[in-house]
Amino acid sequence: MKPIHHTLALPVWRLIKMAYSYYMPTRIFFGEGELNRLGTEKLPGSKALIVLSAGNSMKRFGYLDRVKALLEQNNTGYVVFDKILPNPIKKHVMEGAALARAEGCDFVLGLGGGSSIDSAKTIAIMAANEGDLWDYITGGSGKGKPIPNPALPIVAVTTTAGTGTESDPWAVVTKEETGEKIGIGIDATFPALSIVDPELMVSVPPMLTAYQGFDALFHSTEGYIANIANPISDMYALKAIELVGKYLPRAVKNGEDQKARAMVALANTLSGFVESTSSCTSEHGIEHALSGYHPDLPHGAGLIMISLAYYKAFVDVSADRYITMARALGRTDVTKPEDFLDALAQLQVDCGVDGLKLSDYQIDNKNFVKYAEHAMDIMPGLFAVDPRPLQVEEVVSILRESYR
Amino acid sequence: MKPIHHTLALPVWRLIKMAYSYYMPTRIFFGEGELNRLGTEKLPGSKALIVLSAGNSMKRFGYLDRVKALLEQNNTGYVVFDKILPNPIKKHVMEGAALARAEGCDFVLGLGGGSSIDSAKTIAIMAANEGDLWDYITGGSGKGKPIPNPALPIVAVTTTAGTGTESDPWAVVTKEETGEKIGIGIDATFPALSIVDPELMVSVPPMLTAYQGFDALFHSTEGYIANIANPISDMYALKAIELVGKYLPRAVKNGEDQKARAMVALANTLSGFVESTSSCTSEHGIEHALSGYHPDLPHGAGLIMISLAYYKAFVDVSADRYITMARALGRTDVTKPEDFLDALAQLQVDCGVDGLKLSDYQIDNKNFVKYAEHAMDIMPGLFAVDPRPLQVEEVVSILRESYR
Repeated sequence: MKPIHHTLALPVWRLIKMAYSYYMPTRIFFGEGELNRLGTEKLPGSKALIVLSAGNSMKRFGYLDRVKALLEQNNTGYVVFDKILPNPIKKHVMEGAALARAEGCDFVLGLGGGSSIDSAKTIAIMAANEGDLWDYITGGSGKGKPIPNPALPIVAVTTTAGTGTESDPWAVVTKEETGEKIGIGIDATFPALSIVDPELMVSVPPMLTAYQGFDALFHSTEGYIANIANPISDMYALKAIELVGKYLPRAVKNGEDQKARAMVALANTLSGFVESTSSCTSEHGIEHALSGYHPDLPHGAGLIMISLAYYKAFVDVSADRYITMARALGRTDVTKPEDFLDALAQLQVDCGVDGLKLSDYQIDNKNFVKYAEHAMDIMPGLFAVDPRPLQVEEVVSILRESYR
Repeated sequence: MKPIHHTLALPVWRLIKMAYSYYMPTRIFFGEGELNRLGTEKLPGSKALIVLSAGNSMKRFGYLDRVKALLEQNNTGYVVFDKILPNPIKKHVMEGAALARAEGCDFVLGLGGGSSIDSAKTIAIMAANEGDLWDYITGGSGKGKPIPNPALPIVAVTTTAGTGTESDPWAVVTKEETGEKIGIGIDATFPALSIVDPELMVSVPPMLTAYQGFDALFHSTEGYIANIANPISDMYALKAIELVGKYLPRAVKNGEDQKARAMVALANTLSGFVESTSSCTSEHGIEHALSGYHPDLPHGAGLIMISLAYYKAFVDVSADRYITMARALGRTDVTKPEDFLDALAQLQVDCGVDGLKLSDYQIDNKNFVKYAEHAMDIMPGLFAVDPRPLQVEEVVSILRESYR
């Protein structure tokens, strides 16, 4: 998701030199029971805005009550903001930021999945800066202004394994009037503290476990084929791909399988590292266009739908990397890059998410040109890091192949 | 080097749960020519104390002049402090800190190998805090007081591949009166910015390249067998072990081999990540006792001397991990944990550092009990994370075996 404009088909570092930059300053506590750290660790402020989903799960499973009790134990105040939708919208970000200001909150705690934590990040930006969030968004109708003040510090408590947002700076939000679903990230939106407690993930139902797990997988596969991939991001990506391939089917089959939950959670955090050191590619850009217009389409499901057609597009230019990814997915008999496509299709079968198609969500196939152009307009940076530049007709073809 | 006191022979996380904590907030720029970032990146202050060795190499190779010119280009002032010894002593830390205060420096830039950058870290602590460095040291005659103020921000420009200090918080210093060579590290001694430019390493002569490369290797092998090892540190460690095994002999043989230099530099940075997420073990503690009393003994050489005897001690308790490390060193025919000892011995042959022994440095074998007790006194935390607790007689045996 880095806004690096880069038009070569081959990555510069591979042509000229080996280079990377590394920055991932978040302190992460990972493990069963680590939620309790909220009661003992030094927190980055004295009053939290707790940001969570409009759904009921954080309350029903008792997670919100546990977080409140731990903050109290840590002599920390809080206010709850519980309006976030599965595809977060700008209106709620602005509302949350206004509440944080009115209540004098000095940090933001995101509790839940990617939508809650991403919203915590954008709320943290807008609680510390004037104007409208779209003043600072780059792409689409965003004004792309520099953000004058750092965001409020962010604490992430993740209860899903999908977005990797606990270990990257990125936050995705939709401008509801235009359907623009765009990512924003700055140094200050790396969480100061992230807690990844796999115990909190056993309550995620099988289908969402699969959707989220594939989101994590694609952060790594995209980051691995991106033309800014580097030895550090490759290390994270291959480990995450291996772990998803091995453990996601187990976690989908039996949500109580603690080892599988932990390993998928680890893969997810590593995929966040990939997003911090390499980048997502246009697979995410295309999906954002779809779920920006169709907020009922779960992000992970949208990615799964377009994935086989998307990866087919680079099977020649990224042949060596496809072979390595096929091996990371557990294939021992790899002979050709297409084996990665086979392994990916099989993993979708093993997780019960094969056969998903755009037509399932009433997505109108007459709009595919519009969606393709919209994707390339709102997130050009993601297209710029593809292994080779995609033409708009190719994006349309990917959508067509994913329709039925 | 984490001061975690831990007496079980088996790591708790392997018995009970998978857990880790992660914190490595340094921004790293890695690659040939990346030194030029000093002229363009936002620096953490407006006037640097440039800390470098008393030797001549940073001047002779033009590195100091380049750094000065880049700081000027970046509108940043500087003062030079060039007294650091290969085994840095407390006196120079206190002198450097006094100079930083007198000159109004607001950050410290370490230029050179581990000794210069480690000294930049301890100077940064003492420039911002009253009293004596040993007020804040834990172990030996250190008073172990909490450090009231954060250190000044630190920039690391590493010209060697050995200590990993560019990606960890640790700084090693010797109290010259007592021979106590001890590590200290706090959140504020992670460099704010590190530059790893392999071009700067081509000037390191073969023998030092080998000594430093083995130091990096042992950070990873120790961190991999430490009883606080975890999936994140394991990932870094195995990659670093693989890279050292593959590229260190090439870098020793031909210092101009840019790919080998880059890969060993990468391994070194990854080994710093290991030190940040797992820990060194008593191999480093024992060596610190030796080079604390014998400042002419290069740290890497001391480690190489004791390594085969040291790793023999855990061949049973860490059998599985030894097998994995032997594979990471490139062995394909691994059948038993002792194969790691063979691979390690062979790598020493391939790098021309086999046959080093303590008697080469006039180390008195009548003092071995004293050295062993000293090591366990000054760095008990390193012994606490060994795969199983070593008895003082076993440490003496390791020293005896390493003598000739």
